[in-house]
Amino acid sequence: MVKKLKTNDKHINKLARLLTGPNAILYHKEDLLAYDCDGFTIHKHLPRAVVFPKNTEEVAKIVQYCAKHQLPFLARGAGTGLSGGATPLNNEVIISLVRMKKLISLDVENRRAVVEPGYINLKLTNSISDKGYYYAPDPSSQYACTIGGNVAENAGGAHCLKYGVTTNHILGLEVVLPNGEIIHLGNDGIPDTPGYDLIGLITGSEGTLGIVTKITVRILKNPEEKQTVLAYFDDVEDGSRAVSDIISTGIVPAAMEMMDKTAIEAVEAAAFPVGHPKDIEAVLLIEVDGISAGIEEQITDILNVCTSRNVREVKVAESEQERARWWANRKTGFGAMGAISPDYLVQDGVIPRSRLPEVLSRINQISEESGLRIANIFHAGDGNLHPLVLFDANKPGDTEKALEAGSACLKVCADVGGTITGEHGVGIEKIEEMRFVFSDSEINAQTEVREVFNPDNLLNAGKLFPSPGRCGEVKKAMKAVIS
Amino acid sequence: MVKKLKTNDKHINKLARLLTGPNAILYHKEDLLAYDCDGFTIHKHLPRAVVFPKNTEEVAKIVQYCAKHQLPFLARGAGTGLSGGATPLNNEVIISLVRMKKLISLDVENRRAVVEPGYINLKLTNSISDKGYYYAPDPSSQYACTIGGNVAENAGGAHCLKYGVTTNHILGLEVVLPNGEIIHLGNDGIPDTPGYDLIGLITGSEGTLGIVTKITVRILKNPEEKQTVLAYFDDVEDGSRAVSDIISTGIVPAAMEMMDKTAIEAVEAAAFPVGHPKDIEAVLLIEVDGISAGIEEQITDILNVCTSRNVREVKVAESEQERARWWANRKTGFGAMGAISPDYLVQDGVIPRSRLPEVLSRINQISEESGLRIANIFHAGDGNLHPLVLFDANKPGDTEKALEAGSACLKVCADVGGTITGEHGVGIEKIEEMRFVFSDSEINAQTEVREVFNPDNLLNAGKLFPSPGRCGEVKKAMKAVIS
Repeated sequence: MVKKLKTNDKHINKLARLLTGPNAILYHKEDLLAYDCDGFTIHKHLPRAVVFPKNTEEVAKIVQYCAKHQLPFLARGAGTGLSGGATPLNNEVIISLVRMKKLISLDVENRRAVVEPGYINLKLTNSISDKGYYYAPDPSSQYACTIGGNVAENAGGAHCLKYGVTTNHILGLEVVLPNGEIIHLGNDGIPDTPGYDLIGLITGSEGTLGIVTKITVRILKNPEEKQTVLAYFDDVEDGSRAVSDIISTGIVPAAMEMMDKTAIEAVEAAAFPVGHPKDIEAVLLIEVDGISAGIEEQITDILNVCTSRNVREVKVAESEQERARWWANRKTGFGAMGAISPDYLVQDGVIPRSRLPEVLSRINQISEESGLRIANIFHAGDGNLHPLVLFDANKPGDTEKALEAGSACLKVCADVGGTITGEHGVGIEKIEEMRFVFSDSEINAQTEVREVFNPDNLLNAGKLFPSPGRCGEVKKAMKAVIS
Repeated sequence: MVKKLKTNDKHINKLARLLTGPNAILYHKEDLLAYDCDGFTIHKHLPRAVVFPKNTEEVAKIVQYCAKHQLPFLARGAGTGLSGGATPLNNEVIISLVRMKKLISLDVENRRAVVEPGYINLKLTNSISDKGYYYAPDPSSQYACTIGGNVAENAGGAHCLKYGVTTNHILGLEVVLPNGEIIHLGNDGIPDTPGYDLIGLITGSEGTLGIVTKITVRILKNPEEKQTVLAYFDDVEDGSRAVSDIISTGIVPAAMEMMDKTAIEAVEAAAFPVGHPKDIEAVLLIEVDGISAGIEEQITDILNVCTSRNVREVKVAESEQERARWWANRKTGFGAMGAISPDYLVQDGVIPRSRLPEVLSRINQISEESGLRIANIFHAGDGNLHPLVLFDANKPGDTEKALEAGSACLKVCADVGGTITGEHGVGIEKIEEMRFVFSDSEINAQTEVREVFNPDNLLNAGKLFPSPGRCGEVKKAMKAVIS
């Protein structure tokens, strides 16, 4: 028998009856506080309730109930997103998928695995590494983030240079549509599937088209060997020329990461210092992987390129331990900002690789004009730049200045032919910046697609696309939070 | 001054005035005959007219006119498609893009090129090879097919095993929507773009969502070295186990092609025989490419795998000439069927690699039951199987039998967890087979997306998705053609 909950909200009582697990619904304000935002903490709002379905059927029932009673709702994974995609703007019922966390099946011969959306990214690699396989997309949050969330945001990672972002690794999806219908997309998905590429459409749609309840992913064979190079440059331009030169040799590194002087200061002050020189302008971390025989020659080519671009010092990791340390140093990059600044805002632009020196100098200008320091961490190989604007939320006006500086950085990226997000998504954060890269009719074409799937706009409304009304509301809401 | 055309069709006269080039419109029946189908020749129908716009603005004007006057229309490239995507079913105005064939710009440093849709696939590689670059997707028709057509069909090719199909190489699109509006999608597109993946949605949409008028493609650096292996097996199962074993070593060959005994008979009787043994059950053509240093070891691994799977004979190409000959032999595969059969029907299924022996034995059964020979050409690495049903259109009942056998082959592919097209598209040909892999609500989700872009269904109607009415009509029309 179902116990009546301690609330008079009839919808919450009804929703509770659709769920079978213990403690499958939260509705007390103190419980809901943990769900008032995701990793984009500037904007917060309480949900109506949080539900924890155990399987696809429960998700479908919840969605059908919400659709019938016109209750806004949205899906949430681990809440590590950086643009507010899982933040409730409309008192939503949050459908948390963390209890749907099974590895459903593994087919090593055909290189695929089927997982539930709450399955943690790194756990997949850990469960198959003894068989010699791994899952490629590796966002820095991979120890916590879920594969369902990765699909929603089309997550990337340091190694997406060679292996591609999430969308390149998704072979099939089970999706609960906003009307509660369950659909299946893709089979093995190789090399192409008939009909429209709805898998591609839903991947990266930031939770606005449906709720993914099962995911078939591609798994990859572990490379036979990896080698990692660290190179220090006195001039950022030399470093970025080296990046282009390496790509020009025909080598496709597994990863090619750059940090500037301010970022180096931060990571050296954080948990995993590696002893980067303090006066250096740029460090490059380059990894190559593959069949053993080819690796040595690639490393030689990379060292030669670095030398020709006036590298101050360059070295190859001598042990797996050293390699792991270099990566830990780099992967703590965002969090490390906490060591040198009370608050920071991560931005996420994409630029043509060759425009890096120009873009960095314009970002320096923005930093000077705003009076705020900006560190730069850069997936250099694929042109994905993360300016980190350092500020102090307790200092009046600083948050606004940081938001303005962040937006200005994205404008610079858009102006050189790049775009406003590489892997973090638009969410709430970059809604207005969508206008830097899309015309009204281009935005309309997209919102019309949303209407097909989500006609009543109950699912994750107010995200991803600007609309005159919503834009103003968000801006107002943000101002209210900031002031 | 505009000359009045020799027709009383007022729309043709009006359309002619929207075009500036010489002979920019065809409307005489004898001229239209060349446009009554594409490479899928079983179904033919005359268009109302064929127009040859010179630029995006002319395309937009034609489309606006058609939209205003509710005239059905569709776009056509080189007409090499194999599923009827460019065949007019509704007396369409065909918008031929062959005069829009410029290489607009080339940006070697950021690895991208911008082309018009009528630009020929192979021409791109030929124009950049002196700089050390190439364009990866290589359908067998690449000497004739256009990149615009490749985008519409999401074309593949022998080398898509390592490098991916067309959608993996498209960074941006300019599209004329069915209402005549021009939109721009993507920037450099790396690694992800904000908003929905409309580039992915339009790529492979078989000309039903819009007309692509400009394409930004990724170009790749030529590999430093290529090596090619030919291996003969007395048992198809051994050959297909070798394919799985090679993938399991961690090698990703650039291509891995298989032909069965009947296919071998055909290619040996055609333009480029290479002396394959006549009594062999399967030949594998395997190519590896990349940095020189790693190649030799990969070849050794491949030879070892073949030996362990009871290969009768295996050899490495000793010269570029020999390598080119082997590829010419393989790439003439479809056409070569003409040497052993008056007519043939190409099918295009996808299966999990590991199910190949089982699928081939079921295809043999279908062949026996239908009394028609079936040859098999197989992009083995990525599970894309092309059964070629041999028949004689002049023999009463043979065409119908061939269509039935082809459909039965696709059913087998769908039943083992595969799908009904790998790279040729659905078009007219596989409309009914879409039901093998999609439920009604999955098809509805897709046709609703089409309605957003193409609300009046003027653009390429009757393709890609079954609908009760249309399905019956096509079937009836097909029967009329066949009988």
